[in-house]
Amino acid sequence: MVKLNEETREEYFAKIMKSAVKEELDEFRRLFLELHPADQTEVFLRLEETERRRVYEFLSPEEFAEIFEGLEIDEQKAIAFELNDHYSAEMFNKMYADDVADFFGELQQDHVQDILQAMDNEDADDVRELLMYEEGTAGSIMTKEFVSVKASDTVGDVIELLRQEGPDAETIYYLYVVDEAGKLAGVTSIRDLITSMSDEKIENFMSTRVVSVHVKTDQEEVAQLIQKYDFLAAPVITDHNMLVGIVTVDDVIDVLEEEATEDLGEITASRGSTDVTLTSFQAAKRRAPWIVLLMFFGLGTAEVIGTFEQTLESVVLLAAFIPMVMGSAGNTGTQSLAVAVRALATGTLEKRGFWKTIVREFSTGLLIGIICGIVITLLLGFFYGDLFLGFIVGLSIMISLGVASVIGTTIPLIINKLNMDPAIASGPFITTLSDVISLMIYFSVATSLLQHM
Amino acid sequence: MVKLNEETREEYFAKIMKSAVKEELDEFRRLFLELHPADQTEVFLRLEETERRRVYEFLSPEEFAEIFEGLEIDEQKAIAFELNDHYSAEMFNKMYADDVADFFGELQQDHVQDILQAMDNEDADDVRELLMYEEGTAGSIMTKEFVSVKASDTVGDVIELLRQEGPDAETIYYLYVVDEAGKLAGVTSIRDLITSMSDEKIENFMSTRVVSVHVKTDQEEVAQLIQKYDFLAAPVITDHNMLVGIVTVDDVIDVLEEEATEDLGEITASRGSTDVTLTSFQAAKRRAPWIVLLMFFGLGTAEVIGTFEQTLESVVLLAAFIPMVMGSAGNTGTQSLAVAVRALATGTLEKRGFWKTIVREFSTGLLIGIICGIVITLLLGFFYGDLFLGFIVGLSIMISLGVASVIGTTIPLIINKLNMDPAIASGPFITTLSDVISLMIYFSVATSLLQHM
Repeated sequence: MVKLNEETREEYFAKIMKSAVKEELDEFRRLFLELHPADQTEVFLRLEETERRRVYEFLSPEEFAEIFEGLEIDEQKAIAFELNDHYSAEMFNKMYADDVADFFGELQQDHVQDILQAMDNEDADDVRELLMYEEGTAGSIMTKEFVSVKASDTVGDVIELLRQEGPDAETIYYLYVVDEAGKLAGVTSIRDLITSMSDEKIENFMSTRVVSVHVKTDQEEVAQLIQKYDFLAAPVITDHNMLVGIVTVDDVIDVLEEEATEDLGEITASRGSTDVTLTSFQAAKRRAPWIVLLMFFGLGTAEVIGTFEQTLESVVLLAAFIPMVMGSAGNTGTQSLAVAVRALATGTLEKRGFWKTIVREFSTGLLIGIICGIVITLLLGFFYGDLFLGFIVGLSIMISLGVASVIGTTIPLIINKLNMDPAIASGPFITTLSDVISLMIYFSVATSLLQHM
Repeated sequence: MVKLNEETREEYFAKIMKSAVKEELDEFRRLFLELHPADQTEVFLRLEETERRRVYEFLSPEEFAEIFEGLEIDEQKAIAFELNDHYSAEMFNKMYADDVADFFGELQQDHVQDILQAMDNEDADDVRELLMYEEGTAGSIMTKEFVSVKASDTVGDVIELLRQEGPDAETIYYLYVVDEAGKLAGVTSIRDLITSMSDEKIENFMSTRVVSVHVKTDQEEVAQLIQKYDFLAAPVITDHNMLVGIVTVDDVIDVLEEEATEDLGEITASRGSTDVTLTSFQAAKRRAPWIVLLMFFGLGTAEVIGTFEQTLESVVLLAAFIPMVMGSAGNTGTQSLAVAVRALATGTLEKRGFWKTIVREFSTGLLIGIICGIVITLLLGFFYGDLFLGFIVGLSIMISLGVASVIGTTIPLIINKLNMDPAIASGPFITTLSDVISLMIYFSVATSLLQHM
């Protein structure tokens, strides 16, 4: 594999591109195939269509499969159109079944059936099975290419098996032991294998109690499990303890990235549109509905201020501190939201409990509120020479921050409990809600204090 | 290893706790040691101090080392106090050097020196070396426990070596080949090893071009590299190509989690305080400074509104739409921020370029602004029967959204370019800035349109 540092990288890539343009088959293959598949994909993406078509001639379907696996779904769709049916069927045969299933999940059903017909029966069956599992489950991210052995096999048998199957398996570091019926019976590792004698039977040193996940387990739970135990893979089983696949650590990394993007998208009301490669129109189409919806909710704030128009008319300066009261409450609510989202993602919330978390957040919000309240009262008293206005703003901020932190924590937790779409609990929605409530607090405090003036 | 599903788990844990309380040494060891270290840690954390002290007697320092590695830093600090000096020195000898260094990094310097003195020389040297690397670099997260071999070794030699060193190494799946000087010369895998003849020399099948990272490389870059190539580990080298350690995939998962938490903390101004296990006082202490600081920035909004007091006095109803204009701009800015943060984290930004991204975001913001502007103008014309007010609000929203999306994208990118602390670009800071600007736009539009009335 070629090691490419920043300097040599572009030079090397340029050489490959040149050989593709010049149609130098041997030179192209020599340079290109020495690259890591991830780098091959990168070079491939730089080519124009005419050169890409040349690549399909230069490389076998098996060689091209590794490039195809590295493409994004949208890129895969575009490229698949450039391949002839025979070439692509061969390529899908050689790809990992889970990657094929991911791609097929995005295609039209009848088109998928056509391709499956053209593929080898055995490979097609693997893909068909994976397509049955719901997105986001262990079944949907598992791979079918794992090594399974029998308890009665000897170390020598297994090493012979690895020589044959090793190159095709996604990982050979764990070897799963199944009984005649295909049920998961134990696990051993290649580490144990090489420290054992060649005629030793697997059953003598395998461990019979295996940590596994069910095929319907949520992918986030699988990721947490693998992370907790520092596994490189976890076996996936059905209701009847049948071993049907494994989830490997590189899939888990992708899941974690996906979930982090999702969390960020939720907190910023930009779910599904944080991808920088979208066009302005695509991005606006996905993001505008959230902003418009939030704007409608924002009418609530206009309602509240409209209700207190009289108070506002008597002291117009009250309007000057609307953004500050709202802003402080919104910021505190967002902090609480971040705590809740993180606690849900890392599983610490379950350890700690629902009520304890809410009480902790309320106390935190109130403490911050007291600090801010005192600071702003003194500041306005000193800065604007208006201690009374300062007191109105200070007291409102104190109460609002306590309330906002409860809103920020409670709503995502409730939504999580109800298994509803957590997008509703996104940062902007929480901020809008806390805007309305903090305005009501502000004007109520102001109205009642002004009456006593 | 015991497989614990939800039902058997608590039961099994209860049995262990009972044996600890009853001081049944053999029963405790039998049940406890069959657990995965991650589960051992979980049980250990449930024990009271008297029982914990019993565990230190029941388990050898080596056995306890695995539990200690699983604790959070704060927990480690508390527990370390309960151990006698000899026991803890022995335990640190048996821990992975990177875990020891992580813990020592949090202790007082003179205390660290005392413990290092009490440790075995060789183990202490590994830790000393790791302590030298700056936090957040490859050096700080790498492990020293890797297997290195010589190019002239035969497969048989290496398998013999693995039998001896295997149990201590963090991973044996990649075998790094070094020359006499300790320079990285190649890599091979256990996969290649078992498919080769016993008398074959490593140099005949190793790959000589290894993807490696420099000891000072940022940990986020290391994570991206391992993710890109689906590696299980990456070798860490110095300026002179000396192999000094490896970064394993489980460390990378922790880095990714850490970075996701950091991103979320930045976007919500709650950096370093999203941990739900902090007390209210600790959380308030860390979070209040941000809120107070943002409140001071919020004085800017009060200034702007104060400046336009006259306009506001002539049409008090203008105040009612302050939150909506500010809110829509803030939400759009936050979306753009999410896009920028995600693009920086996943490295897609570099592929796409700085200006292209900003232009894309500006167009997106403007498009959303046009949609929102038309909707709100019509709505206020219809709902409030005030088309003129609707036009003021609509036009302001349109301009504000375009500007806010540029702010939301540009500021994090600039801060990233300047290598400054990105916390300044957090969501609330961007929102506060966009608040001030959108208010200025709103009141300027209102003032000039009212003049022409």
